[in-house]
Amino acid sequence: MSKDKKLKIIPLGGLGEVGKNMMAYEYDRRLLVVDAGLMFPENDMLGVDYILPDFDYLRQNADRVDGIIITHGHEDHIGAIHHLLNVVPAPVYGTPLTRGLVEVKLARNGLSSRAELRTVEAGTKVQVGPFEVETFHVCHSIPDAIGLGITTPAGLIVHSGDYKFDQTPVDNWPTDFAKLAEFSARGVDILLADSTNSERPGWTQSESVIGPALDEVFRTAPGRIIVATFASLIARMQQVADAAIRHGRRMVFVGTSMVDNAKIARKMGYLEIPEETIVSLDEALNLPKKEVILMCTGSQGEPSSIIGRLSTGTNRQFDVQEGDTIVLSSHPIPGNEEAVSKTMDRLMRRGAEVVYEAIAAVHVSGHASSEEQKLLLNLVRPKFFVPIHGELHHLKRHAALARQVGIPAENIQVVENGQVIELTDGKLTLGERLPGGYVFVEGETVGEIDFDVMREREQLARSGLVLVSASLDKYSSRLLREPDVITRGFISAEDADRLLPAVRKKVTDMINGGGLDDEKTISDAVRNLLYGETRRKPMVFVSITKA
Amino acid sequence: MSKDKKLKIIPLGGLGEVGKNMMAYEYDRRLLVVDAGLMFPENDMLGVDYILPDFDYLRQNADRVDGIIITHGHEDHIGAIHHLLNVVPAPVYGTPLTRGLVEVKLARNGLSSRAELRTVEAGTKVQVGPFEVETFHVCHSIPDAIGLGITTPAGLIVHSGDYKFDQTPVDNWPTDFAKLAEFSARGVDILLADSTNSERPGWTQSESVIGPALDEVFRTAPGRIIVATFASLIARMQQVADAAIRHGRRMVFVGTSMVDNAKIARKMGYLEIPEETIVSLDEALNLPKKEVILMCTGSQGEPSSIIGRLSTGTNRQFDVQEGDTIVLSSHPIPGNEEAVSKTMDRLMRRGAEVVYEAIAAVHVSGHASSEEQKLLLNLVRPKFFVPIHGELHHLKRHAALARQVGIPAENIQVVENGQVIELTDGKLTLGERLPGGYVFVEGETVGEIDFDVMREREQLARSGLVLVSASLDKYSSRLLREPDVITRGFISAEDADRLLPAVRKKVTDMINGGGLDDEKTISDAVRNLLYGETRRKPMVFVSITKA
Repeated sequence: MSKDKKLKIIPLGGLGEVGKNMMAYEYDRRLLVVDAGLMFPENDMLGVDYILPDFDYLRQNADRVDGIIITHGHEDHIGAIHHLLNVVPAPVYGTPLTRGLVEVKLARNGLSSRAELRTVEAGTKVQVGPFEVETFHVCHSIPDAIGLGITTPAGLIVHSGDYKFDQTPVDNWPTDFAKLAEFSARGVDILLADSTNSERPGWTQSESVIGPALDEVFRTAPGRIIVATFASLIARMQQVADAAIRHGRRMVFVGTSMVDNAKIARKMGYLEIPEETIVSLDEALNLPKKEVILMCTGSQGEPSSIIGRLSTGTNRQFDVQEGDTIVLSSHPIPGNEEAVSKTMDRLMRRGAEVVYEAIAAVHVSGHASSEEQKLLLNLVRPKFFVPIHGELHHLKRHAALARQVGIPAENIQVVENGQVIELTDGKLTLGERLPGGYVFVEGETVGEIDFDVMREREQLARSGLVLVSASLDKYSSRLLREPDVITRGFISAEDADRLLPAVRKKVTDMINGGGLDDEKTISDAVRNLLYGETRRKPMVFVSITKA
Repeated sequence: MSKDKKLKIIPLGGLGEVGKNMMAYEYDRRLLVVDAGLMFPENDMLGVDYILPDFDYLRQNADRVDGIIITHGHEDHIGAIHHLLNVVPAPVYGTPLTRGLVEVKLARNGLSSRAELRTVEAGTKVQVGPFEVETFHVCHSIPDAIGLGITTPAGLIVHSGDYKFDQTPVDNWPTDFAKLAEFSARGVDILLADSTNSERPGWTQSESVIGPALDEVFRTAPGRIIVATFASLIARMQQVADAAIRHGRRMVFVGTSMVDNAKIARKMGYLEIPEETIVSLDEALNLPKKEVILMCTGSQGEPSSIIGRLSTGTNRQFDVQEGDTIVLSSHPIPGNEEAVSKTMDRLMRRGAEVVYEAIAAVHVSGHASSEEQKLLLNLVRPKFFVPIHGELHHLKRHAALARQVGIPAENIQVVENGQVIELTDGKLTLGERLPGGYVFVEGETVGEIDFDVMREREQLARSGLVLVSASLDKYSSRLLREPDVITRGFISAEDADRLLPAVRKKVTDMINGGGLDDEKTISDAVRNLLYGETRRKPMVFVSITKA
């Protein structure tokens, strides 16, 4: 095997979550990309809308990419596909539902014509360049999700994707144990597996516990029911629709992404709702309240979502009313806990009953917990193990579980994004470290925001700013008029009335009294004065004009 | 009973957590204050250090306050005491340890001489104005915590404070069931109880599970052990010290608040550590690594704490080393989850093992879970129930538990801070609503930051700022020189190189070409230009000087 014929594993994206949103495999200089998802910004990433994995390596080697395979249709696995296809025009492979959801996304971004989409059914095989990819069905909170068995001359790799071992899934399609056992019999060189829930003991509950919990809500709700979840949680839509039918309610999907995804999933047979159950929003708002269920987004407390707007009384088409029951059918993404909690309180203040994960089984995780992770390890019995899809502490915990089931510590590699792993002659070693990180998307701006800019924002956010502008006579170097002082985000208007005259006096004294005209000296003095008065350090800008 | 002789319950503070940090009871125009704690800012309260309850009502009625009683020595119950005593100079009552911790706090704020502190032992009675207060011991994560039975002619009120029913507490002092039963026999009019964990099923684990978990860590740690927790978690200090002794390690407290609190708790006999176990930091750093345990703050991921500085490699006296074991012995306060998770990952990158609540029983909650809350309700059997200490959704959940155990829905009042409740002639009704909310503390500034200022900061933080300054000839109204353009927190330096010339050109064209000199017109044009190029809206300031 030549040097180039080693297999490289390249975790590219995931905001701390290793390889969560994008991975690449390289063999014989050919590349296979797995997933193209986006990430949501953390609390200290001020102003950022969303984040892309840094796929500069793929951009630079676009002609070497033979294909992009998408494991399932959630935003964190398909949300960056249009950005990726802009620079890496390779064919995209996915199961029928995944393909449908990718089509919706591409259409919304005007890319439909340029993309080459190829359907691959779960349980079938596809050759992508030198990679023989065998897909196998996995349970997750969306139908038609897959994991991958990837064979090259370097060996067999199993890539779990997001998965859980649901024994009673809503679509009666359990994770493909037989295929995993078959891989095991063949001999798996490396298992890469989802670490999201490695800190959760036991087993993740089955999706089927949600049906009875919804029944209880539907049975007791005195008026309208509003269910909020992610627009890509197709399995949840099915369960809500089934409950609606059982309890004689009509259903409406509200919001573009919800409507579009439901439409494609129904068209493709992954979401079965009789035509008479679905109504328009107008119809829904005119039906008796006990006969309606609305399904929308906003379960993460996003201010611009429907639930966010309902909570602040700023939704256009309808309001929350006394007697409404709101079901938040999701788990807060780390960092969103506070926003979700506040949103719930606001909805309650408007008279709604709010039902949520902590008090009723209206949501279960789509990811395997630690006992399931051990089961996967024991089923697949890989030589090497690489935990993926998690922050460093999740990966370390997953590695500890792997040691518990007998994988030798030296056969486990815990890496972070950008760290290439190489499989050569049956040995797993660390390869190069790619530069990179994340790419911030803000409005139409992709990648123009960097950490320097973020730091400046943080400083502005912490104490605000003070602007001083002074015009001096160019001959006498004395002030032509009193200096202007403006503040933003620093002190309240009444405190400004007290404090700003002192700033004006200080600047006036320095210029007229001290003969100074240096912007830096004056801004340092203003900064010191303000610090002395308030113990805070706003950004201070002084502009001196001579004329 | 005259109109003034009704009893008023006044929940004053707690950042969404009702009455968490401060409550007041009013009878016959006399006031009893319970607790004086501070709150930690939420993620969107940019730049705020901490928050005080708005006790304007107490300030206005300072001469009517007969006493302040503190239920236990945690920051969220004593942290505002110096601010309160500045305007309400009433005697402060607390158990010996609580009093000691209050003294430490007052000394640090130069208020020792002005405060009148009175000791009240758990299980005793004290008359404060018209309030007969019977204290009873409760288990919590600090020794010497109490709840209150408050008798006035209007009736008997039980105020739980923070509590749990630990059957095997570390100090062998369970919650005072007998006193609760006695209150019940006398007939309790209103129970006010801690709702923090109303969403947690079952019972909170006993503090005594922590000892064995620490033993496991101490047994396997290959080098130094660093335990991080809150400086006021005295019970945790005892458990760590006991483990240190069992495993032959010496112990050092690091950080002022940790050192001061340990000192007072040891002096008063609430923390028993033999002299030979305690070493100085210098000694600790020179001992063999296997013989040392350091105890410090920073379990919430606070950047300026010792753990925060260790995680970023900016601690002065020592660094994290390969082989160190760091134990985070606390639960993230809501909103801190992300910071804690990042801090753990940073420590791991520096080679430390990190042990935390999710993977080992190194922390248990100090608050009752739902089965304990039901037990308290059944023990006390109050006529009325008012859930306190929790956000609205916690209170609503606690109210649901109360209905489950048979309290009629109409006898339960769920209120938010500032909403007065009145007990008159055996009836519980809503009283006035006090204005108010929170008071932000930032550096030396108390209360000068309002929500307007916070909104400006948010706007600055979201997209940064652009400053344009232009000098015009006062006769020709043409530019004397090219306009200056400065940005902060808006775009990266390289993008600025591309974008700012366009801004300068636009401004030049408007002034020299269009004869404009109006700051607003020009700043609107700059804003539109920038929005067109970036789809973002920085704050734009234009300053035009004519000379």
